[in-house]
Amino acid sequence: MAALDVGGTTVKAALLDGALNVLATRRERTARGADGSALAEQVASVVAALAADAGSAAPDAVGVVVPGIVDEQARVARFSANLDWRDVPFGELLERRLGRPVAFGHDVRAGGLAEFRTGAGQGCRDAAFVAVGTGIAAALQLDGRIYPGHGLAGEIGHIDVGHSGRCGCGAIGCLEAIASASAIARRYTERTGRPADGARPVVDAAREGDDVAQTVLSEALEALAHGLRTLLTLLAPEAIVLGGGLFTATEYVLGPIRERLGSALTFQRMPDLRVAKLGDEAGRFGAGLLALDALRRRDS
Amino acid sequence: MAALDVGGTTVKAALLDGALNVLATRRERTARGADGSALAEQVASVVAALAADAGSAAPDAVGVVVPGIVDEQARVARFSANLDWRDVPFGELLERRLGRPVAFGHDVRAGGLAEFRTGAGQGCRDAAFVAVGTGIAAALQLDGRIYPGHGLAGEIGHIDVGHSGRCGCGAIGCLEAIASASAIARRYTERTGRPADGARPVVDAAREGDDVAQTVLSEALEALAHGLRTLLTLLAPEAIVLGGGLFTATEYVLGPIRERLGSALTFQRMPDLRVAKLGDEAGRFGAGLLALDALRRRDS
Repeated sequence: MAALDVGGTTVKAALLDGALNVLATRRERTARGADGSALAEQVASVVAALAADAGSAAPDAVGVVVPGIVDEQARVARFSANLDWRDVPFGELLERRLGRPVAFGHDVRAGGLAEFRTGAGQGCRDAAFVAVGTGIAAALQLDGRIYPGHGLAGEIGHIDVGHSGRCGCGAIGCLEAIASASAIARRYTERTGRPADGARPVVDAAREGDDVAQTVLSEALEALAHGLRTLLTLLAPEAIVLGGGLFTATEYVLGPIRERLGSALTFQRMPDLRVAKLGDEAGRFGAGLLALDALRRRDS
Repeated sequence: MAALDVGGTTVKAALLDGALNVLATRRERTARGADGSALAEQVASVVAALAADAGSAAPDAVGVVVPGIVDEQARVARFSANLDWRDVPFGELLERRLGRPVAFGHDVRAGGLAEFRTGAGQGCRDAAFVAVGTGIAAALQLDGRIYPGHGLAGEIGHIDVGHSGRCGCGAIGCLEAIASASAIARRYTERTGRPADGARPVVDAAREGDDVAQTVLSEALEALAHGLRTLLTLLAPEAIVLGGGLFTATEYVLGPIRERLGSALTFQRMPDLRVAKLGDEAGRFGAGLLALDALRRRDS
């Protein structure tokens, strides 16, 4: 099958076999257009190119994931700021274009699905995948199934963790306004005048003893611990899988979160904190799993 | 079937027919004992008495719900402060004693089940039932099923809503330390020296213009709105059902919550806020539904 992770700038595509081994990959700039037809054309041509690359027949199913608010059941993108989409029934549109089964999903939930089934979240019926990037969002696996909440669930980046900064969404105190990779970089730059490309340079500076970097990072980790405490108090997952470039500095970042979380819990169960295994591939891999599930449903 | 809502002080029992009509009721002081055998004896005698009251045969199944941390699947009460229980396999124990199917559940989740199936929460796949009493806890219906989280989910009373008071659990800032019925009464008494039996007298005083009562209530409703905002940002329920004596003053209490919540949302969907319909009967009614489900599972 073919699996595509469509972002606002890049389409990451792969051809996978039934055991999800990668047979070919492609990367292209995302074709824009408010009605989704340009992207559907692009997906069709990328899928054909992948099959040609691998010297194989057209794939039997295609999985596509996008950011924003996606109603997986209806296969409609309700809203995607990155793609400039509103109520685009992309699943149906693409299935008509391709004439074969299409699964359409949400990038973070698909990434979570991949981590839960084949990555760091394996072996848990109840688990959360928290992706810390430009924003912060979570995929929730509850009782063994991904919980979509009509595409609206998992917005942990917008729970109020008690700071005074304004978020891009308009509210005050949102987790992602202090702890996303972009927020960490922005807050470091605001205080030092030095640009930072994401959270990693700030983590590196903190490790080398930069006071401002340490403060900015410490505030971010404190806020993350606050957000995770809220999540686990409501949902009691067995494991929380943390994804994003921030966590490549595993223990330097995970240690303080674990410590702060541990000291903030009273009766709650401490979940297993794990770092994501699939990195940037999670979304594409999840798209493949969705396509596989769509095939199984058709054949059952 | 027989349905029993077992609290720390009172057992509320009813005999129900297959359509959940009440045929007889009983109320007794809870029989205490750390191993659960005293309660099992009591349940057996109450069930026999109910059948005699109604002039009917012994019920074909029994549902029992208790407070605390209950693992419904294992039918074990992991912890219940009110009953002084730790790891009591009450479901199995009672089934052996009675020789007929026993469902064993959690009082708030069973109350939520009852509200979702037959009360104020009908018609929603995704909904939350928030019970405001001595503490504050939630039952979560996600994708049409109650989510138990191994008995640990739904502890909305212990999310941090950003005040400086200490909760009974040991943490600072917990929702229930400022917004539970007991907290409202306690905070009113602390500031006025006047005793209050629960939240209702404080609501009544606030309506009559008592400044302190208005402040205490306003702080509680602000905190509740904060807690509900967090819940809906993570789970996006279609409806939130609010239960507890506080909400008998429906619009006086619901109006401010709706207003504060509305002004705190940005992209999130405003859920339908509803007042619980089943009142004190919710737990017992939920126990009946659990018993009915147990029978259906056995017969299917």
